[in-house]
Amino acid sequence: MVVNKKYIHIGKGAKIHKGAIIGYKTLRKVKSLDLKIGQNLVVMAGAVIYAGTSIRDGAVISHNSIVREENRIGDNFCLWNNSIVDYGCKIGDKVKIHCNVYVAQYTKIEDDVFIGPGTTIANDLHPKCKYSRRCMRGPHIKRGAIIGAGATINPFVLIGERAFIGAGSVVTKDIPSGKVVCGNPAKIICSIKDLKCRTGLTDFPYMSK
Amino acid sequence: MVVNKKYIHIGKGAKIHKGAIIGYKTLRKVKSLDLKIGQNLVVMAGAVIYAGTSIRDGAVISHNSIVREENRIGDNFCLWNNSIVDYGCKIGDKVKIHCNVYVAQYTKIEDDVFIGPGTTIANDLHPKCKYSRRCMRGPHIKRGAIIGAGATINPFVLIGERAFIGAGSVVTKDIPSGKVVCGNPAKIICSIKDLKCRTGLTDFPYMSK
Amino acid sequence: MVVNKKYIHIGKGAKIHKGAIIGYKTLRKVKSLDLKIGQNLVVMAGAVIYAGTSIRDGAVISHNSIVREENRIGDNFCLWNNSIVDYGCKIGDKVKIHCNVYVAQYTKIEDDVFIGPGTTIANDLHPKCKYSRRCMRGPHIKRGAIIGAGATINPFVLIGERAFIGAGSVVTKDIPSGKVVCGNPAKIICSIKDLKCRTGLTDFPYMSK
Repeated sequence: MVVNKKYIHIGKGAKIHKGAIIGYKTLRKVKSLDLKIGQNLVVMAGAVIYAGTSIRDGAVISHNSIVREENRIGDNFCLWNNSIVDYGCKIGDKVKIHCNVYVAQYTKIEDDVFIGPGTTIANDLHPKCKYSRRCMRGPHIKRGAIIGAGATINPFVLIGERAFIGAGSVVTKDIPSGKVVCGNPAKIICSIKDLKCRTGLTDFPYMSK
Repeated sequence: MVVNKKYIHIGKGAKIHKGAIIGYKTLRKVKSLDLKIGQNLVVMAGAVIYAGTSIRDGAVISHNSIVREENRIGDNFCLWNNSIVDYGCKIGDKVKIHCNVYVAQYTKIEDDVFIGPGTTIANDLHPKCKYSRRCMRGPHIKRGAIIGAGATINPFVLIGERAFIGAGSVVTKDIPSGKVVCGNPAKIICSIKDLKCRTGLTDFPYMSK
Repeated sequence: MVVNKKYIHIGKGAKIHKGAIIGYKTLRKVKSLDLKIGQNLVVMAGAVIYAGTSIRDGAVISHNSIVREENRIGDNFCLWNNSIVDYGCKIGDKVKIHCNVYVAQYTKIEDDVFIGPGTTIANDLHPKCKYSRRCMRGPHIKRGAIIGAGATINPFVLIGERAFIGAGSVVTKDIPSGKVVCGNPAKIICSIKDLKCRTGLTDFPYMSK
């Protein structure tokens, strides 16, 4: 269902399943309610895309997922079931966000990032602090980083290119490029090039670069 | 959509968005199906409020969130997207519960509590135990406490006033008033008055009291 | 709402609440779209059951929960609110999966398992690895195991019969039958027969066997 149609621009080939909502109006004050979505969008039942955001070609927004306003999202975005991208985020191309994930406002996610199921991304160091609006900032997750299942990512942290965050990690500090971390708080255990798979086969994006 | 209308009393100024459901009937046996909601309710698409509960003025119930029966909830309640308040809870005024949160049955939450995204509150020490109904009890979270993102809170624990639970914490014991904890299991690291912000500005509710 | 009706076989006594969807068609290629559901199904508003799966008698699928294709699920299955069973899982009888849970593809769950709220089950050791499809495998959770709230379960692990996974645990290794674990990473702390309840009463399934 497309609502607030005058603000909505959707490219060719869109498949808007029954029970999805496109063009929801935020309760916040925003500069623009224009919603620009590229070609070949798929939106499943129960998903909600707010007015006032932009998503490029090839997005798949799955059941009960929510994309809020003032986001800028690249090509081939996947947002799986029951996940939320809060407002004001910048997301690159080919980003995949799995099920039951929360992405806080003002998070930056670069190209080719993968975020595992059940991950929570925070942006507020001191919730309820009178001044918290002044220092609210999501993490910056760089190109090709991989976040495992059930992780918690704190505000302000920089997760380097191709870093690999183990399942259940709580990331409280910056993670250097290409490092593998796990634990609460997350600590470096090796480099991604040292990871050996049970099958003997591993080939991560950009790994040879 | 309001169902089971004869049980439902909603104050003035309600905004019930299309796709929300108010008055859902539980499969459990309950004493009363009366649903009393105060003024200026906002309920978004996909949210479900059960019959047999009470919520005072100014509530905002966001997408895909669920408020079950036999809850008593105060003024200015915010329940963000994809969160659940299970039955039998007592929730004070100005409580804010973020996205992807689960609040177990029989949890007590006092005024001004903030619960961060991805938090899970449990109430059952021994799930599947034949006697677990006899000892099922959620935590008691006291006035002004702040629960960070991705935390897990065990049954029976008492979280003191203005305590601050760090992101990703697993709270297994009582937390004294005004203390900051983190880790799995959560341990005290300092007092909330010792927290220094990057900006130099911190001012939490009740901090000067 | 039942869609793609020609593929759907539902037993007697089904209660399909308004706003539920049964028979959703996956975007994946599957061998069969036949959906076989036993007697006395209850499906609540916002839930989605995909075509191409089988669920036996007595299932309750709660709000906003999703059951994907190619699952084989036993009798008396409970899937509470906002939870997801991804495709290709095998689930026994009397399995209860609480709220906000994600069960990854190819997970095996035996009879009488309980999975607490906010739990994330993973299946991919190396997300984004070019070869990850070759080694994708969910955990195998054996009969009567109990998973506490907010746990993260890694791919490939075997959780033994009647094992008890404490709240907030991150399970990275096989857990022997009847052991209680907690922490990140989860470590054995005792046997389930040593657990003493506050009430003095504990009686877990199969405990005396």
